[in-house]
Amino acid sequence: MLINVPETVVADALRGMAAAHPELTVDIENRVVVRRDAPVAGKVGLVSGGGSGHEPLHGGFVGRGMLSAACPGEVFTSPVPDQLVRAAAAVDSGEGVLFVVKNYTGDVLNFEMAAELAEEEGVRIAKVLVNDDVAVTDSLYTAGRRGTGATLFVEKIAGAAADEGAPLERIEAIGRQVNESSRSFGVALSACTTPAKGSPTFDLPPGELELGIGIHGEPGRERRRMMTSHEIADFAVDAVLDDLRPRGPVLVLVNGMGATPLLELYGFGAEVHRVLAERRVPVARTLVGNYVTSLDMAGASVTFCQVNEELLRLWDAPVNTPALRWGC
Amino acid sequence: MLINVPETVVADALRGMAAAHPELTVDIENRVVVRRDAPVAGKVGLVSGGGSGHEPLHGGFVGRGMLSAACPGEVFTSPVPDQLVRAAAAVDSGEGVLFVVKNYTGDVLNFEMAAELAEEEGVRIAKVLVNDDVAVTDSLYTAGRRGTGATLFVEKIAGAAADEGAPLERIEAIGRQVNESSRSFGVALSACTTPAKGSPTFDLPPGELELGIGIHGEPGRERRRMMTSHEIADFAVDAVLDDLRPRGPVLVLVNGMGATPLLELYGFGAEVHRVLAERRVPVARTLVGNYVTSLDMAGASVTFCQVNEELLRLWDAPVNTPALRWGC
Repeated sequence: MLINVPETVVADALRGMAAAHPELTVDIENRVVVRRDAPVAGKVGLVSGGGSGHEPLHGGFVGRGMLSAACPGEVFTSPVPDQLVRAAAAVDSGEGVLFVVKNYTGDVLNFEMAAELAEEEGVRIAKVLVNDDVAVTDSLYTAGRRGTGATLFVEKIAGAAADEGAPLERIEAIGRQVNESSRSFGVALSACTTPAKGSPTFDLPPGELELGIGIHGEPGRERRRMMTSHEIADFAVDAVLDDLRPRGPVLVLVNGMGATPLLELYGFGAEVHRVLAERRVPVARTLVGNYVTSLDMAGASVTFCQVNEELLRLWDAPVNTPALRWGC
Repeated sequence: MLINVPETVVADALRGMAAAHPELTVDIENRVVVRRDAPVAGKVGLVSGGGSGHEPLHGGFVGRGMLSAACPGEVFTSPVPDQLVRAAAAVDSGEGVLFVVKNYTGDVLNFEMAAELAEEEGVRIAKVLVNDDVAVTDSLYTAGRRGTGATLFVEKIAGAAADEGAPLERIEAIGRQVNESSRSFGVALSACTTPAKGSPTFDLPPGELELGIGIHGEPGRERRRMMTSHEIADFAVDAVLDDLRPRGPVLVLVNGMGATPLLELYGFGAEVHRVLAERRVPVARTLVGNYVTSLDMAGASVTFCQVNEELLRLWDAPVNTPALRWGC
């Protein structure tokens, strides 16, 4: 690993973000990444966070048209309430703050506690829980479905609505709508290695893959001998469509887990499009790349979000963050 | 690997690019990726290309303010002259075309041949050779220094000049100036695996790293026991500065080789900034991410480009490509 010592990995990364992105305010000691121009008058704030190791999620999505602030926890560990309360205070213009929470037990508890503390300090808080992963119900760290790739859709689309000046209740409703319209499924071709452990977090022999993997390496549905990109796309897309049953165009995220080359991700994206065409699901937009990762895990996930005209307009709206940027 | 069969990896990726990027024209059969609006009247065309496996280089850099077209070869294999001639014809508005060529023997020969053929067809061609890697002189596939990370700087800055309507000779001069003002150094923490071979292309035991690696796994300067991010930054930055000796601010590219998590890359970026501050080299801009990769190799490279006001203005100019996008 390209690190100093495991204990400083998150702080080191925040120092690097501060150096590379003068448009962000990075509080390294308290682990909060904030838009430099926050709070923006009249605008609802958007705050997310979660364990580190999924970069660019969430810090890379802070900026105009997406998150107001992000709070990284230790690797694969929830941020603490104090971080989230600080972030909420830093971005609240008086219009309130939406918390975007991935469905992991620790995250849910800590965001809940932070919401209570922030409300006591006079910040109105609403929450959207992201639980898009159809692979399994209940899992390591999770009651219900896990939150994965749809987080990007929720943060982008709710962020655009906030940018347009929508009130907190409306942004919360849009965030929930996006989550309810989204489903994901991921596969691992290799395990990931956390800095603290220094060796793979689970055992996945070469020549096998895990279908339905979680973004911390949580077990999926089944393990098989290696499949082709064609076969994996059939399996993953059908797993999502069986649950989502879209009746309209979808946003497509073909997401790399970290170590799969972009060359392979684009090839997999072609297979995902093939299956969608065979299932007569129209595609509105496609994003291919490493967005919701699992350290150095090889593999990929697919996320679809069924969109109407309003959601598509918000998806296309300008965004200016380190990892997602268009229209401005 | 997330592939079908090795033989279709490049074509599959091009199908995926076509599906994800309607703003590009992707000729899958002939392997040419072109801006949809090419040729742009009055604008010089910029064409680059090279072996696949370094994505997003070069196809991900096609669009407004950067490349007009890119030609992917097989994995780690030069594109053939016919691809380059087609690309030149597709983007020439009558103002001529600049070829951006990384210094590998096959690339140099094939771009040279393509230039002759295109000139015979009436397209004026100029060339910029990129040879920024200070690790070694002469190497597998290369006479002289290898071309690596500076390719991004040349394509971005020359592309911006072309966008402004500069004539071919001026764009060629700017491209050469950028190359001469840039140097790189890379390290590998693991080998990469090509689809055709299916196993690591060289032997690098866990717990060791290769200092001065090439983007195809060519040998570097030396192999050592694993070093910290701090130590690697000291070594890599000094290797670049010893050769570049900048007398002014630099652009900084902290580039991932493919499998190193963004969390680690940002931490490494912090160390790179620390060394630059110790050496009293001012930083104008910093880019952190996977831009010039080597399939699934773990590791990173640093590239610095000394800039004056003009080059910095062109760096900041709007760019709208799949992998690099700002200001539009």
